[in-house]
Amino acid sequence: MCPNTLYIPELREMLATGDDAGLQDFCTAVHPAAVADFTDMLRTEEAWQVLRHTDPQTRAEIFSFYDLPKQVELLENLASKDAAQLVGELSPDDRVDLLEEIDPLVVADFLPLIPESIRRNIFHLQRYPEDTAGSMMTTEFARLEETTTVKNAISSIASQAENLETVYYLYVVDRQDRLSGVLSARDLVSSIGRPDAVIGDLMDTHVISVDADEDTEEVAEQVAKYDLLAIPVVDQQHRMLGIITHDDVIDFLREQAVEETQRLGGVAPLDDSYLRASIPRLTWNRGLWLIILFIGALLTAFALEQYKDGPLTTAWLVLFIPLIISSGGNSGSQSATLIISALSAGHIKPSDWARIIARELIQGIVLGLVLGLIGYLAALWLGPDDSAHLIHALTVPITVLLVVIAGTLMGAMLPLIFERIGWDPALMSTPFIAGIIDVVGIVIYMTVAILLISGTA
Amino acid sequence: MCPNTLYIPELREMLATGDDAGLQDFCTAVHPAAVADFTDMLRTEEAWQVLRHTDPQTRAEIFSFYDLPKQVELLENLASKDAAQLVGELSPDDRVDLLEEIDPLVVADFLPLIPESIRRNIFHLQRYPEDTAGSMMTTEFARLEETTTVKNAISSIASQAENLETVYYLYVVDRQDRLSGVLSARDLVSSIGRPDAVIGDLMDTHVISVDADEDTEEVAEQVAKYDLLAIPVVDQQHRMLGIITHDDVIDFLREQAVEETQRLGGVAPLDDSYLRASIPRLTWNRGLWLIILFIGALLTAFALEQYKDGPLTTAWLVLFIPLIISSGGNSGSQSATLIISALSAGHIKPSDWARIIARELIQGIVLGLVLGLIGYLAALWLGPDDSAHLIHALTVPITVLLVVIAGTLMGAMLPLIFERIGWDPALMSTPFIAGIIDVVGIVIYMTVAILLISGTA
Repeated sequence: MCPNTLYIPELREMLATGDDAGLQDFCTAVHPAAVADFTDMLRTEEAWQVLRHTDPQTRAEIFSFYDLPKQVELLENLASKDAAQLVGELSPDDRVDLLEEIDPLVVADFLPLIPESIRRNIFHLQRYPEDTAGSMMTTEFARLEETTTVKNAISSIASQAENLETVYYLYVVDRQDRLSGVLSARDLVSSIGRPDAVIGDLMDTHVISVDADEDTEEVAEQVAKYDLLAIPVVDQQHRMLGIITHDDVIDFLREQAVEETQRLGGVAPLDDSYLRASIPRLTWNRGLWLIILFIGALLTAFALEQYKDGPLTTAWLVLFIPLIISSGGNSGSQSATLIISALSAGHIKPSDWARIIARELIQGIVLGLVLGLIGYLAALWLGPDDSAHLIHALTVPITVLLVVIAGTLMGAMLPLIFERIGWDPALMSTPFIAGIIDVVGIVIYMTVAILLISGTA
Repeated sequence: MCPNTLYIPELREMLATGDDAGLQDFCTAVHPAAVADFTDMLRTEEAWQVLRHTDPQTRAEIFSFYDLPKQVELLENLASKDAAQLVGELSPDDRVDLLEEIDPLVVADFLPLIPESIRRNIFHLQRYPEDTAGSMMTTEFARLEETTTVKNAISSIASQAENLETVYYLYVVDRQDRLSGVLSARDLVSSIGRPDAVIGDLMDTHVISVDADEDTEEVAEQVAKYDLLAIPVVDQQHRMLGIITHDDVIDFLREQAVEETQRLGGVAPLDDSYLRASIPRLTWNRGLWLIILFIGALLTAFALEQYKDGPLTTAWLVLFIPLIISSGGNSGSQSATLIISALSAGHIKPSDWARIIARELIQGIVLGLVLGLIGYLAALWLGPDDSAHLIHALTVPITVLLVVIAGTLMGAMLPLIFERIGWDPALMSTPFIAGIIDVVGIVIYMTVAILLISGTA
């Protein structure tokens, strides 16, 4: 979300002159998301002054469109009474996410002012660990009983509609709250000609649902696969706990894409957007990886040292060290990228490893031969001027071929191994894979050089 | 989607024994997405034999859950009459996407058998270029007039519901088809107590819409920002052309995440999933980049050659070449990753460049100093054994500091420059940025070495 400063002067003017009617009009005429945009760059007290000019429900809706750091800042500066009212109006899932970020002392102040039923709901939702379906769900959904008629269902939904995040799926539960079926609002509306038909006869009993402790990625996959607007979350007794709506899935996918890119690029994912993240936080999130990679890269210096009195005394061999290293690193990064993205999209499984090795091996050979040919020409140009130069220069293409094959195989296998032992394959950043292949590349290069050059000396 | 082989033997058995009732039951009792899963691994004729046992509408729905290559294979092997019927039942947006992939000779065969209105719709949608809102929309949506009453609206929607992808937003258009408002099905159902109220009084006139030639990324951003189920697509006269539904946005986000990861990892995005892509296609999509990167990396050899008779004769300096290069590459990749992902999430704009430079510069200095310190210790350990070794070994930390700063600044600036001149910043893969910084790193290293070592000699 890019904050918009367009209306800032007008809003400040209205606040200064006490133009309550104008502010009320502003808060209601524009979409809540747009109000959030326009007030995002106001100071905290100013933003709250503007938001005061609307009813608590709209206020909470506008508030929910701010990003998390802004929400925290606003809430921590409110009087306990206002904070309690605002938090009470938020949707259950957003509420819990927000409370986790708030200073516990502030929470302790306003929590007692929140109605008990909501407080209980908060404690209930807080039990679900992050990255599970339970932590993503809202507990407000439209429920019906099997024996209800179409006519009664419509008026029941009409009365529930105000307070629900979505009324497009109506969940049918029994006395024990067990999920027995689902009916779309569309099917209900289509059945309006049969007001006395019973919901149990109309509902679809093949309900796609997820367990509360299911992974959030699996939730996104199910919602995408079945084109759902919302997915019900159940416990082990198949009792209905809540629903996860399409907009939370869309937000999750967008956040996840950024996080996965950052992880692959060797940056620990940021909670904030780039410009909001503090510089120490940014530095730390990259520094950690960068130091690990640097210490790993030090191995290349120690590896090279072993050859200080051998191939390294041959100046032209030194010229190609960066080239060899980057060939291995690049082909390894490519394979890792392909495998990690295929794993996260669900296109491959670790059990496909044999097919993957075969495919990567073929690619590695073809690519290694092509690059090796270019490398050979360069080695002839820059390379040895001794009598066996045609043979000595072969050191470069042979090494390139071997390094590219090693790169593709290791780049593909390391993420699969991670996935297999239950770690997130995206933790394996591509710079990390490139770093491992760097050391392997140097050992291969120096070994080939010793064999070829001393073999023909 | 992972194809499921669980039911394959049963389905083959039912086909062999001509168990029509069993097959009909299978096609209707299970969710269409699940039927697609279970039949995905059948041979083309077998899958079609199974799908025959259901009505044309359900058949098209099941078919739409196959992935694109499977759809192409199936359709190209159908009799023209069957193909025309199937294509006629698909949703307008899916239909056009599919036809683009089909052998034109096959299309020419069945196209005349499709009803004229659908054929016109196809030609109409084909006009919109890929990656625009127009290419993503479906032309089927629920429409109402301002003067309709709630009672008539409900029965009108009930009769339209069967053929529409979504009835959750009802779009209000005037005689010229211009979009004047929107009403959610939820608001309509809530108003059921006032059957004679007029839609024009209930509708929301602040409709969030997109132009047909708007970028698909902008569509996803609007849908995410306003938590929409569907977004209307309009032409320049604000006439309603179609809608883009939430499920297409979810699919787009999932595909885009994979493509962006591939691009950043230096692989031209694949149309197919990893295992479905042919090996020559895979090799080509990476080979292109790998060859460009390799030729770029050759510059490092030519750059080093300039120093063949200078610092390169100092063996210990050579040991640190890979370390220097990878420090620059890694810090550059990190910055590029942060900036590219922030750009694509809409968190920053090219006009923020001054703030970004300042932030990257601070990070570069801090990180460079930390890594430089580690590098200095390593250089003292592995480094010069001359009398001025404390000073000569400074070559490593000074270079690391400069290279990390250069890496962060270039890694951040290159994607911003790309964005500014209108190219996709993700085209700038992180290996490409690392490649540029490699050459810069060598020049810095050798220059610092000459200055420090000859300065104290």
